[in-house]
Amino acid sequence: MNHPHTPHASFSTTPLYLSAPDAVALVRRKGLKNCIAGMAEYIRADFLRWPDFDKSARVANHSQGGVIELMPIADDTTYSFKYVNGHPHNTAIGLSTVMAFGVLADVATGAPTLVSELTLTTALRTAATSALAAKALARPNSRVMALIGNGAQSEFQAIAFQHLVGIDTVRLFDIDPQATTKLFANLSATGLKLQVCTSVAEAVQGADIVTTITADKACATIVTADMLAPGMHINAVGGDCPGKTELAADVLQAAKVFVEYTPQTRVEGDSQQMPADFAVTELWQVLNGTRTGRDNDAQITVFDSVGFALEDFSALRFMHEAALALGYGERLHLIPQLSDPKNLFVTLLDAGHKASALPLPCLATAIA
Amino acid sequence: MNHPHTPHASFSTTPLYLSAPDAVALVRRKGLKNCIAGMAEYIRADFLRWPDFDKSARVANHSQGGVIELMPIADDTTYSFKYVNGHPHNTAIGLSTVMAFGVLADVATGAPTLVSELTLTTALRTAATSALAAKALARPNSRVMALIGNGAQSEFQAIAFQHLVGIDTVRLFDIDPQATTKLFANLSATGLKLQVCTSVAEAVQGADIVTTITADKACATIVTADMLAPGMHINAVGGDCPGKTELAADVLQAAKVFVEYTPQTRVEGDSQQMPADFAVTELWQVLNGTRTGRDNDAQITVFDSVGFALEDFSALRFMHEAALALGYGERLHLIPQLSDPKNLFVTLLDAGHKASALPLPCLATAIA
Repeated sequence: MNHPHTPHASFSTTPLYLSAPDAVALVRRKGLKNCIAGMAEYIRADFLRWPDFDKSARVANHSQGGVIELMPIADDTTYSFKYVNGHPHNTAIGLSTVMAFGVLADVATGAPTLVSELTLTTALRTAATSALAAKALARPNSRVMALIGNGAQSEFQAIAFQHLVGIDTVRLFDIDPQATTKLFANLSATGLKLQVCTSVAEAVQGADIVTTITADKACATIVTADMLAPGMHINAVGGDCPGKTELAADVLQAAKVFVEYTPQTRVEGDSQQMPADFAVTELWQVLNGTRTGRDNDAQITVFDSVGFALEDFSALRFMHEAALALGYGERLHLIPQLSDPKNLFVTLLDAGHKASALPLPCLATAIA
Repeated sequence: MNHPHTPHASFSTTPLYLSAPDAVALVRRKGLKNCIAGMAEYIRADFLRWPDFDKSARVANHSQGGVIELMPIADDTTYSFKYVNGHPHNTAIGLSTVMAFGVLADVATGAPTLVSELTLTTALRTAATSALAAKALARPNSRVMALIGNGAQSEFQAIAFQHLVGIDTVRLFDIDPQATTKLFANLSATGLKLQVCTSVAEAVQGADIVTTITADKACATIVTADMLAPGMHINAVGGDCPGKTELAADVLQAAKVFVEYTPQTRVEGDSQQMPADFAVTELWQVLNGTRTGRDNDAQITVFDSVGFALEDFSALRFMHEAALALGYGERLHLIPQLSDPKNLFVTLLDAGHKASALPLPCLATAIA
């Protein structure tokens, strides 16, 4: 299952469509922890071949209420992009803060092969990436995680860290107590020991790993340097666009900082607060052994995660293959099916008109 | 009908899906020339409010066989993007050179409102934009057009110029005589006078307007300076990505050159051959009267068109409104429907688990 390529019907122009209900059914069928673990494997395999990818920072359209982004990436055979928004006030009107969908396409022809929901899938791939990074960067004996921000993605983080990192205790905090109530209830059957806390400082105290996954589009300082303890790993997920941060600058200053894709993180991550020459290490180099991760057990490590297109590429391939294998999804007629690809116009003609498409004598000069 | 905004159901997360067959049915129902004329009106209205848009050059992933591009744009209320490929060798395996789809979304929430085919629609909007530019730039008495490149988009150009510009005669040439045969047949019922030619030079001779719409991804010199006649307007559509040009540099040198969006055209258009300070005029400024178009009847004008995201924005809005008005399309469950948007995880739980989401006594400290 390592680094397989997405299969696709030759020359097909009917991409598979995986709806949100289909993705839910698929994840329930395979099991959430298996899906997160499977995605983490795909992500790891793709990070190990990092130089194979045509990478770019995402394209963002910012507005007063939020941001809409496109995140394209490709290797020699497969192209993907993700559409994703971030609108922190959406929950007030019953919409998700983050909604996403994604596409896979065949590099050789440009034909789309998959159109998929990517809201649920983003939650899975983000958790998978966080856990993958923590496995490489946190102290191996990490058991306690603080989870700051108990919104839509928090359960996925808890379950990923339980199964992939070995976390057994989660300390919960959110400025919205109802979010914490919801997270507590949702995690009640997982076997995780859950500790509800009344402040960030309380939650962070005694934690081996601190995961921040807050949604406010503001330069927040959720974790400050006085909360740090030697050997802590900070998984900073929520600070992911310009003007949206979670860590105080002196937290970054005190830590060894790891990123996905430097040009993007310097603009979008917590590192946006730091000078352009602030030292960061790319995760893929730690995974492939060319750079060291944590230098010692006392060091503070920060994964300044913003979400990179390659993670969606990996996640979409995982979902595509699982959907094809298990028979989920349907075909979308998004592209005209033409008997002659140079004759798009003929699709607009009725049968009577088509009959006039006969060889014409006046064309002899052109054909001769 | 001028510059209306796309209606959308409040807080809906089920975008309308307009398939390729639905788009064909819609265009047949409204009539092709009415659709092109309607789109030209939408494009003109949007070009007139050019400063309202958050514009960027498209993001392109180039590969050996072609290119895949994303073209986002937004105003204060509506966001759109287009996915489009360009693979000139696709026709050899029965696929279109250009395949596209597009999305509209609500800027206030980030929710997608339309997922639409954009292969047929691109052909319409490209023809509409070309005709709009020619109306502003060509001599008003233009009647004869040379059409160089008789592929999938050529019929749409001919019909747009017939109805919006007043062209009555089209001179056809393609290096592939079968393409010309197809175009001739498809235009046979239009009332246009059709003249099949054996070379570019022959087709251009006597033409008021020269439309080049060839597909080869190469620095071609399809139109050379010796073919030019005073007063000609050149509608250069096919030279639209790095390394893909149609006009000899001295044609541009001899002409007054008009573009859609300068930063994009200097990279992608025929103007990529020219120095960075080569003078160009943006079409929207001619349309709104702040810059002059053609200076006199003898001047050569070139519309160095590459296709800009705003044209797709306008075209998608036109198709969306027409589809809603006439009842075409269906709803796509691309985004999870959540009763509590902070509770994405609950969609994965079965009924038994959901029952455990009760207030828990140990949360008292957090809520107090």
